[in-house]
Amino acid sequence: MTKTIAAVATPPGIGGISVIRLSGEKSFDIIERCFESKRKIDFTKGSRIYYGQIVDGDKKIDSVNVSIFKSPNSYTGEDTVEISCHGNSLLADIIVELLVKYGAEYAEPGEFTRRAFLNGKLDLTQAEAVADLIHSTTVPGVETAAKQLNGNFTDRLLQMRQELLDIASLLELELDFSEEGLDLIDRSVVVDKILKAVRFCSDLINAYTASEVCRAGYYTAVTGFPNSGKSTLFNTLIGRNRAIVSNIAGTTRDYLEESLYIKGLRITLADTAGLRDTDDLIEIEGIKLVESVIEQANLVIVLNDSTSGINTSDKLAETIRSRYKEKEVILIQNKCDISSIETTLSISAITGQGCEELKALIYEKAVKSISAMNDIMINSRHKQLLQSALSSLNDALSSINSDMENELIAIDIKKATNILGELTGESWNEEVLANIFSRFCIGK
Amino acid sequence: MTKTIAAVATPPGIGGISVIRLSGEKSFDIIERCFESKRKIDFTKGSRIYYGQIVDGDKKIDSVNVSIFKSPNSYTGEDTVEISCHGNSLLADIIVELLVKYGAEYAEPGEFTRRAFLNGKLDLTQAEAVADLIHSTTVPGVETAAKQLNGNFTDRLLQMRQELLDIASLLELELDFSEEGLDLIDRSVVVDKILKAVRFCSDLINAYTASEVCRAGYYTAVTGFPNSGKSTLFNTLIGRNRAIVSNIAGTTRDYLEESLYIKGLRITLADTAGLRDTDDLIEIEGIKLVESVIEQANLVIVLNDSTSGINTSDKLAETIRSRYKEKEVILIQNKCDISSIETTLSISAITGQGCEELKALIYEKAVKSISAMNDIMINSRHKQLLQSALSSLNDALSSINSDMENELIAIDIKKATNILGELTGESWNEEVLANIFSRFCIGK
Repeated sequence: MTKTIAAVATPPGIGGISVIRLSGEKSFDIIERCFESKRKIDFTKGSRIYYGQIVDGDKKIDSVNVSIFKSPNSYTGEDTVEISCHGNSLLADIIVELLVKYGAEYAEPGEFTRRAFLNGKLDLTQAEAVADLIHSTTVPGVETAAKQLNGNFTDRLLQMRQELLDIASLLELELDFSEEGLDLIDRSVVVDKILKAVRFCSDLINAYTASEVCRAGYYTAVTGFPNSGKSTLFNTLIGRNRAIVSNIAGTTRDYLEESLYIKGLRITLADTAGLRDTDDLIEIEGIKLVESVIEQANLVIVLNDSTSGINTSDKLAETIRSRYKEKEVILIQNKCDISSIETTLSISAITGQGCEELKALIYEKAVKSISAMNDIMINSRHKQLLQSALSSLNDALSSINSDMENELIAIDIKKATNILGELTGESWNEEVLANIFSRFCIGK
Repeated sequence: MTKTIAAVATPPGIGGISVIRLSGEKSFDIIERCFESKRKIDFTKGSRIYYGQIVDGDKKIDSVNVSIFKSPNSYTGEDTVEISCHGNSLLADIIVELLVKYGAEYAEPGEFTRRAFLNGKLDLTQAEAVADLIHSTTVPGVETAAKQLNGNFTDRLLQMRQELLDIASLLELELDFSEEGLDLIDRSVVVDKILKAVRFCSDLINAYTASEVCRAGYYTAVTGFPNSGKSTLFNTLIGRNRAIVSNIAGTTRDYLEESLYIKGLRITLADTAGLRDTDDLIEIEGIKLVESVIEQANLVIVLNDSTSGINTSDKLAETIRSRYKEKEVILIQNKCDISSIETTLSISAITGQGCEELKALIYEKAVKSISAMNDIMINSRHKQLLQSALSSLNDALSSINSDMENELIAIDIKKATNILGELTGESWNEEVLANIFSRFCIGK
């Protein structure tokens, strides 16, 4: 008998409703012990809702709606109860504790979805799509994850896998007829099929960065020398005074992060300390932070104080470009209300001049960064498996080029198909599952 | 025909599930247009759940559960639909937009509960209990609000009101028999009843501060001279490095707030800039902030650097005590690992010595501050009305003392009963409702 698990399923915080989910064989027993309703629950029928009180003995905890889902017609495939209480995390936690008191156990992160996978409700790429659907901070991310949940990644993987299996079978069959010298499949057809699979894997691998941007947003670091106006620009772009601004160099010590949305895309903006050598202990700590910010950035804005000369930050921008080759780096001239410099990328953070154009530019770069996505959310597990599959496919191509035995070619191709099978979860092990579901939140 | 309203009902953020609520006459029409399910929805039956897809034409948005509630058996009393989708605010927003496209309107804050009130599902103190249940940050707050939602405040108010109405009626009746000189009710009984009502109102008014602590947490400001170790103490108490710590005076410029929970009570801790005169522009801005922090604090900790002398901060503590008479102010000796000073309130923020005792002390003060609560969550509307009632009751007492006519005494008593009626919402106006429901979040 598997244990019955309970957790709050809605985000923490303040809202109208919180939902607690209870799943497993004892779910109905447990809810009977802590729920009072005018209508008696008919546990022979699922998909029904009952209004009543969660009670701990004589003590009334909250007025709630209780939804009954009968196995297998539930998210997990097990008997499931969802309790919809007033939207306060503390209250929801009190109810979970009560369920535990009556025999449930605290659910691990992702444990509901893990059960859905084990009960055949979802395959692995769909389970991962659930996580992406929940964690995506951009509209394209949400839309792509929803498609993946509906099985579009699974379908494509299965189709590609089948095509590879077909040629592997033909190559093996040819082997059986080798004495007759029968050519069942033209080598050029085999090569074409493998090249198609290579492109399939490469395209998906290339979608990884785009998928990350869809998950977490487009990370933009504002850097530059002290007093170039970084905090002012930060405040102007996010539209409120979050960072303390002064004309004293070194005002920003911690780094600040805020997000803004441009047309459904999340742009996370980081304000950083001025980059310079300094003997101020706190600032040196800050500058170490700047480097870690740049490392995770998709876009680095180098802000130049144009009143100190238009080329003052050129070397800084060049250094960042050469050290972080894969990053977008743009040099922006600030304080153009004073210097009256007009370049394509000149702004005044304080008056707002040129800032809408800068936002549009950031958006344009962000859109470009997700254009490779191709309707699939690739995560690091996918990327790793796809790279292994790619390597096996390249081995197969080498074998063909060096005129190796069919048998060896077929082995490489089948290795690739096995890896594609791992993606959907046809084969899996506990470590893979543990890794996937640890990334989920509790309650999913 | 009232408009049909839609909103996300769960807290924003990441979780397993988000719930969207749709209420009003067109709810069933609207859901039919954007939901596809294998089982056709039977709108003649409420309290049923349907699994399927939210669709926008051909585009699938998400796999969801749709709950159907038929008027009057719903939260609002109207036909209501709840859509349980994957827990991502962006996704939930997309679905709300879709509902609006098909004829719903965006709900105002508290509009669902307002409808519940107007449809007789809740009285006003219960509606306010819903808001308190949602916003309370402490276990006692949640428990008290849940009791209030179950009607314990309403019951007490109605009973008190009835007792006052009874004596007012007897006084008026006596008037009719005044020619016979009949004494239907002894004046001392009238006085006793009024005094009982006075105590009733006073006790409730006194519960206001306690209720606020239950709602928002016990606000504790850490203050003191620069370099007394405020940020170190702040980090030690919250259990992680949130504030940048250095031995350079004036490191904390913005003020920082974090909450910790001690046995179900929320303690909000504020780290503040060092209090001193300074010519540093940024710090002066910070010090203005300190005063605003102290103003909202329940408890002010004055942290003294004991290595600079045990009495260095006495005057500072005295100044704060005399300026903010209603605040708890405690003077704590820090850096006792170096100074080896041992008083009842000596700690070392850096080694943690004495910090558990300090936490226990903060908890004790917080518990004391909510002890006056008496099972009711008093808000400013209640407080104001109770003060008016109190004033009318005192008028009645004065009238009795000056041997006034029964008629005048009865008028004062009935004024008090009318005010008690306003508390539950027996009489209300649009302004009162607007005020109450504007404090709700959207989706409730």
